[in-house]
Order: sequence, then structure tokens, then C-alpha cells
Amino acid sequence: MSEKLERLKELLGEVSDINRAASVLSWDQQVNMPPGGNEARGQQMATLSKIAQEKFITDEVGRLIEDLKQEYKGADPESDEAAMIRVAARNYDKARRVPPEFIAEQAIVSSKAFEAWVDAKRTSDFSIFRPHLEKTVELVKKYISFFPPADHPYDTLLDDYEPGMKTADVRAIFDALRPKQVELIRAIASARQVKADFLFKKFNEKKMIDFGVDVITRFGYDWSRGRQDKAPHPFETAFSVDDVRITTRYETDNPTATLFSTMHESGHAMYEQGVNPAYERTPLASGTSLAVHESQSRMWENLVGRSLPFWEHFFPAFKKAFPSQLDGVGLKAFYKAINKVEPSLIRVNADEATYNLHIMLRLELEIAMVDEKVAIKDLPEIWNAKMEEYLGITPPNDAKGVLQDIHWSYGSIGYFSTYALGNLISAQLWEKINKDIRDLDDQIRRGDFSQLLGWLRKNIHQHGHKYEPQELVQRVTGSKITAGPYVRYLTKKYGEIYGL
Amino acid sequence: MSEKLERLKELLGEVSDINRAASVLSWDQQVNMPPGGNEARGQQMATLSKIAQEKFITDEVGRLIEDLKQEYKGADPESDEAAMIRVAARNYDKARRVPPEFIAEQAIVSSKAFEAWVDAKRTSDFSIFRPHLEKTVELVKKYISFFPPADHPYDTLLDDYEPGMKTADVRAIFDALRPKQVELIRAIASARQVKADFLFKKFNEKKMIDFGVDVITRFGYDWSRGRQDKAPHPFETAFSVDDVRITTRYETDNPTATLFSTMHESGHAMYEQGVNPAYERTPLASGTSLAVHESQSRMWENLVGRSLPFWEHFFPAFKKAFPSQLDGVGLKAFYKAINKVEPSLIRVNADEATYNLHIMLRLELEIAMVDEKVAIKDLPEIWNAKMEEYLGITPPNDAKGVLQDIHWSYGSIGYFSTYALGNLISAQLWEKINKDIRDLDDQIRRGDFSQLLGWLRKNIHQHGHKYEPQELVQRVTGSKITAGPYVRYLTKKYGEIYGL
Repeated sequence: MSEKLERLKELLGEVSDINRAASVLSWDQQVNMPPGGNEARGQQMATLSKIAQEKFITDEVGRLIEDLKQEYKGADPESDEAAMIRVAARNYDKARRVPPEFIAEQAIVSSKAFEAWVDAKRTSDFSIFRPHLEKTVELVKKYISFFPPADHPYDTLLDDYEPGMKTADVRAIFDALRPKQVELIRAIASARQVKADFLFKKFNEKKMIDFGVDVITRFGYDWSRGRQDKAPHPFETAFSVDDVRITTRYETDNPTATLFSTMHESGHAMYEQGVNPAYERTPLASGTSLAVHESQSRMWENLVGRSLPFWEHFFPAFKKAFPSQLDGVGLKAFYKAINKVEPSLIRVNADEATYNLHIMLRLELEIAMVDEKVAIKDLPEIWNAKMEEYLGITPPNDAKGVLQDIHWSYGSIGYFSTYALGNLISAQLWEKINKDIRDLDDQIRRGDFSQLLGWLRKNIHQHGHKYEPQELVQRVTGSKITAGPYVRYLTKKYGEIYGL
Repeated sequence: MSEKLERLKELLGEVSDINRAASVLSWDQQVNMPPGGNEARGQQMATLSKIAQEKFITDEVGRLIEDLKQEYKGADPESDEAAMIRVAARNYDKARRVPPEFIAEQAIVSSKAFEAWVDAKRTSDFSIFRPHLEKTVELVKKYISFFPPADHPYDTLLDDYEPGMKTADVRAIFDALRPKQVELIRAIASARQVKADFLFKKFNEKKMIDFGVDVITRFGYDWSRGRQDKAPHPFETAFSVDDVRITTRYETDNPTATLFSTMHESGHAMYEQGVNPAYERTPLASGTSLAVHESQSRMWENLVGRSLPFWEHFFPAFKKAFPSQLDGVGLKAFYKAINKVEPSLIRVNADEATYNLHIMLRLELEIAMVDEKVAIKDLPEIWNAKMEEYLGITPPNDAKGVLQDIHWSYGSIGYFSTYALGNLISAQLWEKINKDIRDLDDQIRRGDFSQLLGWLRKNIHQHGHKYEPQELVQRVTGSKITAGPYVRYLTKKYGEIYGL
């Protein structure tokens, strides 16, 4: 290997070590830390982030990247080396553009904004959050100004979560999707409704968690390179390709959510566990984008975990674990219940058919904020009008409307669309997988997920950050991200469930 | 505050953050980490250590310390500022003397030596470890050469664990202690022996751990600023003054060890929890030396936890928790059993009366190694001869002799004597405490430890690293570390138990 590449890998390896260490601290904070530890922990994490940034944006790293770009000009663009230099260059360019003082200012603003948002949500009073959101949007626009002009200013934000993705692409995809989803939801609303009350009985927490553990063990989540803990919010986090952890929680008023969220997080985790180990400590060592990550979590949660073949296998065991709750409930009734469609106010609780509409609403508002096409003070009203338009319901208050999500409070604008894109990619991959593995349904019916996981490892996981999301999807499915497969998937699934 | 002091605190605060982060990673490794995580974690911890070192030994830190020494020349030497500058200067001087290449070499040697030691211990074959120990001792001597000549070369090693302590001091203390302890043990050996077989029945693990939790809660261990987890070895670790954790384990063949080791670790932890919060992120923010630390852990474990007043309070509850195991066992019989004296081969299992002799043996060998007065190849033989001389028993093999402790495998020479010094300090403080709190025994009999903890906080804990160990002990007890109180303590306690 080139001496310069060796040196660059050494320097980036250290940056990676520091960032991974910060992840351990963050995981510990959410899973184990006693309340007293909060202040010092915040300081420790801030110091690690600062040092990781300092160590990354040195002139030496910049020179090495420039030299290596020249050195590898003729190299196979598909080689790991070329990819590593490409991704390092992109990250470096971004990091150098943003002045440290801006990062410090943003940290202060978002810390205050987060506090205000908690207050505002608790009292359902948008006016508490408004000045902070205004400041946040101002900073976001300042952030955009550090970058070369794009086709649309929102492109700059999107690119941080979905490298290479354009606002126009997302809009085109969503525009194709929206009418189909709205139409489907209307049809479902007029159909005979599904009974799901038995899902909201009292379930034993430990049994539910244990069932989730059994399921993801069968999926292929590798416990020798991971673990699951309880935390206030479910999440996945990777400390290396060989230590990828997940968390779960039990919600009394939605007991089966534990199971589906465990499957969801295991999908994220298996992605990280499947990255080529040779990428460890390089910029290639993680999932390539939030949308592709979400495609993995949603695939295991929904395309597998809410499918009929899956429950043909697992329902007997589930019923055995919860005989009284499922007394008199058959497989089909259970399957319908866990797929019940109901327009609802809260994104995180939304079903597969309505979820994307929550996202589209947010994307439109974010773009309008960046474009200065809406005044922040008008957001609640616009939010509520769009909820009525898309889902036929109006939030009774801002806590259940515009204030429900945490993202804007910490300045994360550009993130939301990745959730919907993840759904689309999951269905797009699913069509391809079912062509490559003809009897996949039968395999799932037998509780055998090994070929599915093998396919994902080979086609998605191992590549880590090597390909940009659009490039990866194109490579694997022959087309860029598109709404068609998801529409077909929803239409078929809900057509059957609701007899449309 | 002086601008330069402000800046120094900022820089040292970052170093502290990185070191604390490394502690979180190490704790996680021992408590939670899945086996796969090992390699990456080693790398992450190595990177953090390296960066902490780099950030500490900069020229800027050196200049600030020099300038501040001048600036604070006339300041009250008892002020926090003067102490902070003093401790920072000492640490800085030490850190600058040791070249990074030496640290890297030592890391490699000790990693190999550790592996060899594991092998050697497993097969009880000293010859496997011998060349590695030879190399280790060579490096230790090289380490000593980086420092100005001391009265004795071993002083340099000792000073890393017990700042300000001299080899001659320790020898004088041990020389006064040794004959008394040997004499006591001989007297005990000729006395009527104590029955303790009921302590080795089967005890329920969870109940034993829960009992330990109850006890240390009463001691005053603050759970809002700490937690206890299970780990292969019991230890205490601090991530800040407000997050000080301990671990415990259950040993089937020594079930009550869980209880005493929990008390022991809580003693370490309460020390760290009691440090003045204003010292956070400065070099003053931790216990001042290993011996003073050990004085705290041994006090709660032995002077409190193996005392008659303690069990007058706790025995009824203990008997209630374990009725079958303690059937027919009275308070006095139980008290005698947990204080049974028996010369044994393994240091970590030694009782209060024999423990220090294990330490003295090690100190003599370490000094002889550094002095080149013994050849490494002769160590096993010398070890065995000394065991016979001090304790009247001879190890049947090297695994239970010279290979039993991990310390030498990672180059830690100079550490052992702190264990014995800790015992001595604990008794020395105890005499003073009992003068200041006249009815301490009665308070303990009532399960009330608040005055005891209050005394320790005020006299020991709050000061953190401010005073050197000898200075602190002198301040509090009016004399430097001395063997008298410990001898009086042992003589009285075992005189009563064995009717000497």
C-alpha cells in the first residue's frame, strides 16, 4: 500500500477511535449512567467531539488526501482504496468548511432549543419553542452558506444524511408516491375495519423481550458481537464491526411495540455487523446513509416481521407465550391486527400505510423554512392543515402536532425524508431479493433467514460506506430509488388484508 | 483567577476528560462488552491514552506551569490553587521524562508478558514467564534511569503509587511490623482453632449480593452517583466525582467473599464520591495515593465490616436471609468464623493477620530485582523459602507461588506495598476516629455510619489529591504512617478471638 495511504489510514483510524469512544460514552449515558453523572459526561463527550474534529481537519490530512487523489487517479474507482480516498475527501471538505466557532455556537443554541422544546411540548405551547426554532433555522441557513451553491439550498442539508441525493430527486419520488398512498388510505377507510384490541391487553414484559431475543437470534443477529439492553428509547449503536449493540423498551400502552422495535434495531445492527472487517477504523466502516440503514431496519421489522409467512412460523410460539391474551385469536386475525391501518397523529406510532405521509409533511415544511416561504410562527397552522389534507385528521394541540418530534430542537433539518426513503428502498430491495431467492416465503415460513441475511450481507452490508446510496441501489436493483415497488407492496398487502 | 491558571485548567480539563473516557471504555470492557469487541476496544483505549499523553506534555502546559509556579510563589501553600499547580508540575515532570517510544515499547513487552504469564500460571511453569519478566525488569530499570538519582532506585517506582514515599520509610515500617505479625501468627497457630465450615455452604447468589447492597447503602454509598455491576473481578472506577461505580462477583467456593468485597469496593467508591466537587477535571480530583485509597476500602471491609459491633447490628438480618446455612450458629461463632486466621498461599484470600506478610515478601523480591541482588531464575525458590519463613507453608507449585499475582506481568513493580500501607493507615485513622467519635462502636451497633462517613469526608475524602499521603496522615493523626496502631488492633482483636 502507498505510504501516504498508510499514514492517512493511521490518522483517520485515530479519529475513528475517538468517535467510537464517544459512542460508548453516549450509549452508557442512555443505558447505565446514574443521574449524577450527567454534567461530567456532557463535558467528556464535548471534549471527544472537539478533539476528533481537530484531529480530522489538520493540514496534514488535507495534504495526504490531495496527494492520494493524484496518486489514485488511474486506479479502479471500485477499489476499496479509491473509495476510501473519495469518502475521506468528501468528509474532509465538509468538515473544513464549517468553522469551529460555528459548531460551538450551534451547540449552545441547540442545547437551549432542546430545553425549550421539552418545555413547549410538555405544556403544548409552540410559542415557547418558536424563538429557538427561528434561531435554529437561521443557523441552518448560515451552515448552508459555507457550501458552494447547490441546485437547491436544501440539497446541502440532505447531502449530510444522504450523500449525493438532491432535493429535486426526493420531491419527484414523493410526488409519485403521495397520491397513491392517499388513495390507498381512503380506500382502507371505507373498507371493513380490522379488530386489534387484543394487542393492547397486559403482556408480561420479560416474556415479550425474551420473544424478541429469540426472533432476532433466528434472524442472525450475532450476540458474540453485540448485546441488547433496556433504555428509554430504542436505538442501535456500533463501537466497531464486532461490537454492535441495540436497546429496547417496554411500553405498557403498546406492548407488542417492543417486539417490532427489537426487530427494527436488529436490522440496523446486522447491517453494521456485516460491514467488511477490513474497513474497520476507516471512513468506509459503517452503513452508507440513513435511508439505506432504515431500509434494513424496516425490512426486518415490516417486510419480514409483519408478514404472513413470518407469523405462520412464529405464531404458535407467540400464542404459547401469551395464551390468555390471544385466547380465541387465530393466525389471520393476528396478522391483520398487527397490520391495522389507522390515520394517527404521531409519526412514530404510524402504520406502514400512513407513515410516509407524516414524512412528506415534514419535508415540505423543512424546505419551506429554508426557502423562507413560511414564517416559523405559522408552522402549527400549516402543520394541522396538511394533516387534515393527507390523513384526514387534525391535531387537538401542538404537542400532538408540530412539537411531537425532537429533530428540529437539535438543529437536525434534512433528516426526516430518510425515513420514507428507507421504506421505499426496503421494498425495492425486496422485489430483487424475491427474484434471486425464489422460495424466500417458504424459507421464512420455516423460520430460516440465512439466505436472506446472506443476500443482504453480500449485496448491501459488506460494502459499508463504499457506494453512495443511489449508486448502491442502482447497482443492486438496476434502478435508482423509486416509489414503484413500495406502492406495489402496500397495494398488494393491504388489498388482501382489507379486501380492496 | 489568574488567566494562566484558567488556561491551564482548561487544558488539564481536556486531558482529564480523555482519561475519564478511557475509564468508561475499560469499565464497559470488563462489565458489558461482547467478546467480539476486544480488539477494537484495545485500539480505542490505546488511542485515548496516547492522545491524553500528547495533550498533557505540550510545551504550552509546561510554560503555564512554570509561569504559575512563579505567580503563586507567595501564595498559601494550602490553597487549592497552589496544590493544583504543585500536583500538575509533579505529574508533568514525570510525564515529560518518559519518551513516547519507551511507552510504546513497554506496551508491547507487557502485552506479550501478560500472555506468557497467563500460560505460565495455567501450566504452573515459571520458565515460560521468566524471559518476559527479565525483559520487564530491564525496562523498569530503564524507566528509573529517566529520573534523577534517588536515595534508592526503587524510590522512583514507589513514588508513582505513593507520592513522596521512600523505600527506606517503607522498609522501616515493615521491619517494625514483621516480627510482631510473625509472633502473633505463631501464637494463633498454637491456640484453639476457630470453626468456619458453615461459611462455605451453598449460599444464594442474589440474596448475598442484595445483602451487600443493603449494607453499603447504610454505609452511605450514593447510588444516585454510582452503580454496582457484576464483573469477573471486583473493582471501583470513577468517571467523575458524581459517577463512581463498583463491581462485584460471586465465588461458589467462597460465597461470603461477595459481601466483604462489596464493602471493600464501596470504601474506595465513597472516597471518590467525597472528593471536593470543585476539583472536578483538575489533577486534584481523585484519591491521593493507592495506600490511602486502600485505607478506605480496608476500613469499611475490616475495621467496620469484620467487627463485632457491625455484626451485632447485621447478624439477625443475615441469619434471616440464610437460615439454613446459619442454623445453630450464634453471633460470636459467626464473628470468629469471618475472622479465622490461617496461613495460606494466596494473597488475595489472606486474612487480616497474615495479609501483610504476603506483601512484605513481594516488596523484598521487588527491591532485590531492581537492585540486581537476585537472578529472575531464582525467584521461585526464594519465594518458597520466604513463604516458609513468614507463614510456615511452602507452595506446592509456582502457580500458587511466584506466579499467583498479575502485577509483574504488566510491568507494575512498586505497587504491592501500598496494600500493606493501606492496612496500617486504616488502623491509624481508626484510633484517631475513635478519639473524635467516642461512641462509634455504639453507633455501628445501631447501624448508623453517618458520623463515621462524615469524619472521613471531612478529614480525608474532600481533599482528593491535595496532600501527599504522608502529609495527609500526619495532618490527620499527628504522625506519619506507622505500624503501631495496626499491631495494637491485630493484637487486641485476635487476642480476644483466640484467647491469647
